[in-house]
Amino acid sequence: MRLASYVHKGRPTFGVVVGDGVFNLESRTGCGSLRELLARGDLPDFGKLGKQPDGFLGRVELLPPIPDPPHFYCIGVNYADHLAEVQKAGITRVAAAYPPVFMRYPESYVAHDQRLVMPGVSERFDYEAELAVVIGKGGRHIDPATALEHVAGYTIFNDGSIRDWQFHTQQVGPGKNFFATGALGPWIVTPDEIGDANSLKIELRLNGRTLQSGNTRDLIFGIPQLISYISEFMPLVPGDLIATGTPAGVGFSRKPPIFMKAGDICEIEIQGIGTLRNVVAAEPKREHWAAQ
Amino acid sequence: MRLASYVHKGRPTFGVVVGDGVFNLESRTGCGSLRELLARGDLPDFGKLGKQPDGFLGRVELLPPIPDPPHFYCIGVNYADHLAEVQKAGITRVAAAYPPVFMRYPESYVAHDQRLVMPGVSERFDYEAELAVVIGKGGRHIDPATALEHVAGYTIFNDGSIRDWQFHTQQVGPGKNFFATGALGPWIVTPDEIGDANSLKIELRLNGRTLQSGNTRDLIFGIPQLISYISEFMPLVPGDLIATGTPAGVGFSRKPPIFMKAGDICEIEIQGIGTLRNVVAAEPKREHWAAQ
Repeated sequence: MRLASYVHKGRPTFGVVVGDGVFNLESRTGCGSLRELLARGDLPDFGKLGKQPDGFLGRVELLPPIPDPPHFYCIGVNYADHLAEVQKAGITRVAAAYPPVFMRYPESYVAHDQRLVMPGVSERFDYEAELAVVIGKGGRHIDPATALEHVAGYTIFNDGSIRDWQFHTQQVGPGKNFFATGALGPWIVTPDEIGDANSLKIELRLNGRTLQSGNTRDLIFGIPQLISYISEFMPLVPGDLIATGTPAGVGFSRKPPIFMKAGDICEIEIQGIGTLRNVVAAEPKREHWAAQ
Repeated sequence: MRLASYVHKGRPTFGVVVGDGVFNLESRTGCGSLRELLARGDLPDFGKLGKQPDGFLGRVELLPPIPDPPHFYCIGVNYADHLAEVQKAGITRVAAAYPPVFMRYPESYVAHDQRLVMPGVSERFDYEAELAVVIGKGGRHIDPATALEHVAGYTIFNDGSIRDWQFHTQQVGPGKNFFATGALGPWIVTPDEIGDANSLKIELRLNGRTLQSGNTRDLIFGIPQLISYISEFMPLVPGDLIATGTPAGVGFSRKPPIFMKAGDICEIEIQGIGTLRNVVAAEPKREHWAAQ
């Protein structure tokens, strides 16, 4: 099942996507948001959706499937091949015994088909293809052995990064939280349709050229470990997101480097989920922020 | 003026503190939260509060003054004397040309007089006295010269940290986001009563013993610079918080180190604001999370 958030008559709502049709679930479930539906625990029987969708893909404006996650945890270097390229680029990162975790605020990413925004203070706007986990059942001190019971589904995240700002200090938060630089979507696919989430092909194309091509089986910390680790410090709640990290092939570590610019089309495809597609726009140039 | 959030008849509300009296502002302003009142721009005339407070300090349960900030930015090493002690403790940190920024989620801190919680997986629970800035007027690309116009007031933050988890990787987020390990309060003091926020004495006492004693004049990046830097990547909105960093004297860099334990009383006093006081409780011990 594919679950999506979208705009209907100017207001946010959500539904299930069947083929090209979108069936509204707000009216059918009485829940106010997808997050609320996930919190309810089990999805209702959608066998009786009827034949007439309430909208069609390409005609409704999609929103990030969870527009307002209570928490959004992003995992830093979590593919061995990406770790190698980062080290090669001169950034001090070691294979850690623990997953590096940082946070992203919702304003830092857009939905499928919405514009990514290159900020005026940098030209080092890089892409990162990632599998994102959506939490359905909350909990704390979660055992890796039962962690997948807490997953409501999977979606795609473009962990768009402003590289110079990311490396201003050891804390990557600023470069990872520029307004509208990431993307989430197009929808959430439930685990029953995904099979083994630790064995999905993941590919990123910029203007049609394949720049990242990996498989989630190469994650250093798998999804159960990530869920367990995060739930040790903070209770997980329905609607929380965990972006699992990106494989090799990012732009800044290439020679010569590749960065996104206005008009570029960035697509991320993950097996069993679909394709997240965004066009890049650019803010007017600004003087680089300088410490006083 | 001192603005506080508190519980009244089992539900969250907010008001102004005059002496020991608390005058409810939800009924007097029609706003649903302090955040909403700050967003309105200017505070109403409170000359006509009347003589009979709606409650008294010590009898109402205070909440963090902003219980649900849209964003909470914390600044890493921002006092030269703290930088020196961190380096001496063997942690690689350099005087950066930019402020290190990480985020804290609201569940990671409690209010004045609520219990700090030492988690079961660590005994390295450390304190950090900090001045916190509350944003009143939102904005982006804010010039340092006009940044203070965006400040609604100041409060106290205990950036309580689980040191082993903080240093699992270079990203400090996990050790800074354990449930109920920080504290915010007791209230917000408006700028007119503070005077120069870059010249306030700040002191931390653990069980009556002074362990940190500094002055905000020693901030490496001053408040205008912090506001300007953050607003370059993300729009600031009313109710956002910026914790400005801690001076020297933290527990983990002492010889021998000092960590908080159940029953300890941690107090932070900042000139012109007041005293944030918390008692430490402890979760039952747990096995340390180990990577699989």
